[in-house]
Amino acid sequence: MVSTESLMKRIQDAFPVGKFLDVPQELYDPIEYALLQGGKRLRPLLVLLSCDMFGGNPEEAMNPAIGVEIFHNFTLLHDDIMDQAPLRRGSPTVYKKWNSNVAILSGDTMFVMAYEYVCRVAPPKLPEVLAIFNDTARKVCEGQQYDMNFETRDDVSLDEYFLMIRLKTAVLIACCLKVGAIMAGAPAADAEHIYKFGEHLGMAFQLQDDLLDTFGDSGKFGKEIGGDIVANKKTFLYVKAFELARGKTRESLKELFNHGHIRPEEKVSRIRELFSDLKVDLQTRKVIGEFLQQALLSLDKVGAGEERKTGLRNLAMDLIRREA
Amino acid sequence: MVSTESLMKRIQDAFPVGKFLDVPQELYDPIEYALLQGGKRLRPLLVLLSCDMFGGNPEEAMNPAIGVEIFHNFTLLHDDIMDQAPLRRGSPTVYKKWNSNVAILSGDTMFVMAYEYVCRVAPPKLPEVLAIFNDTARKVCEGQQYDMNFETRDDVSLDEYFLMIRLKTAVLIACCLKVGAIMAGAPAADAEHIYKFGEHLGMAFQLQDDLLDTFGDSGKFGKEIGGDIVANKKTFLYVKAFELARGKTRESLKELFNHGHIRPEEKVSRIRELFSDLKVDLQTRKVIGEFLQQALLSLDKVGAGEERKTGLRNLAMDLIRREA
Repeated sequence: MVSTESLMKRIQDAFPVGKFLDVPQELYDPIEYALLQGGKRLRPLLVLLSCDMFGGNPEEAMNPAIGVEIFHNFTLLHDDIMDQAPLRRGSPTVYKKWNSNVAILSGDTMFVMAYEYVCRVAPPKLPEVLAIFNDTARKVCEGQQYDMNFETRDDVSLDEYFLMIRLKTAVLIACCLKVGAIMAGAPAADAEHIYKFGEHLGMAFQLQDDLLDTFGDSGKFGKEIGGDIVANKKTFLYVKAFELARGKTRESLKELFNHGHIRPEEKVSRIRELFSDLKVDLQTRKVIGEFLQQALLSLDKVGAGEERKTGLRNLAMDLIRREA
Repeated sequence: MVSTESLMKRIQDAFPVGKFLDVPQELYDPIEYALLQGGKRLRPLLVLLSCDMFGGNPEEAMNPAIGVEIFHNFTLLHDDIMDQAPLRRGSPTVYKKWNSNVAILSGDTMFVMAYEYVCRVAPPKLPEVLAIFNDTARKVCEGQQYDMNFETRDDVSLDEYFLMIRLKTAVLIACCLKVGAIMAGAPAADAEHIYKFGEHLGMAFQLQDDLLDTFGDSGKFGKEIGGDIVANKKTFLYVKAFELARGKTRESLKELFNHGHIRPEEKVSRIRELFSDLKVDLQTRKVIGEFLQQALLSLDKVGAGEERKTGLRNLAMDLIRREA
């Protein structure tokens, strides 16, 4: 077993930043910038932790681990254009720092790079790794489409919301864990259990993200607090609030969300107040706890010794307690 | 040996249009539209013709053949956003009919679909097919970046121009031929010869495209004539004209290209006149002939009977004589 810290260190070392000599520079500079913006490197860590749990050699899973992280960063680049997001992890987004065309084409190139890394596995593993990666990539696009569709709707149900975040966020987390299992040569049933673990964890992770976007600490979060509210994003908080609100509260919510003339800061603070009154934040924490519970039940089913599961179990707990 | 016509028919039957039941519709409708816009289906035909020439079964190359065509259509979708192109094959581009966000995300999804098809090959062929496909996809992005870089420059050399079209157009044609060779189990040396054939043919193909864009027949061409001139695209005609022009002609060319106030139709007709005076059209045909010559020399080196080469040889001739 390898410690989470040393796996994280290996990811940082192996990650292709500060190593770009490719031309044309106009294409590769924004890619390096996007990859340097970094983030938690959660997804490659999940690949390596899963591989390690199943007794595989994490080094052999490093290439697909880097591949999924580059894929994730590619989706952020394109999402930021579609969402017109000015900031990502505290610095300007690629689309804002350069322009949309740059973000489109550098993003496409990152998508190719992701495949290049994912393909660098032992040939007997290649079909299975690609099958889950292709399936995931398709679903992530579908999830982003639902997310955009929901922006102009105010009747999104909880089921629809859960479908959207499952596709947009959870399946990629699940994919990471399954790729780790495949690279370790784990039995198919275990690969499915760890996939389910990832799917539930991914749901909890996204709800935590929704919560932080509205109730987080801007200094720690790296994005402006309330961005989802300003963009009329259909978050768990939003959908749940409309489910719970009655009478005047419901009218106020509707008016605040549909009103174009209110200052963004005022909109955020008034909606946050209504959310608090409805105890939507507590509701969110409750559902996060339920998804975590389901995730841990799936982890229990995995045929590996308890001590080998510690890394993933601890990471899961940390993720739903995080503040950034 | 299978006839070119019957291979083309098989491609039309196997192509995934009119078969879309996927949701969300907002994502898949533009994809179906883009795939239906069609075009010549040249790239999958090249895959199958190459496979057939090397004695393989074209049916076994059908999936990667469809994959490269979907990839090609994906690049058009994103290029049309970057180039702000209103028309493609006589109908509105996806970005114009819907919007940029739709074109970005539907394009991304097509890229995944392309990989899905490319991956559907016999597992022993998978690493080699993906190696050439990944390499090609990366180069196509680089080529598009050079193309964009050149739009704001007026000192592009012929060598730079050739590098750009090699990356943007020729390597994908070459990739198709190599994939066909791999699927047929052709010897590595032959796969390289047919790749070279494709690279030279691709250069000739792009020069023919440049020529048609300025001197073609709008009824047949499907795009507005002179689009490249209006967009200040650095075509072979442009670069060659600046190489040849002296004195007053050179000044006129420069002025016409840099002048923002002239009506597009007048710009096109006056520049076309200058191109004619400089005999740039004849020069272009000459260079097309040279690339075709080189292509046919590479085809000669392929270790297959003369009669098996007829399909590709005829197609090459047709391509440089085409009017659309």
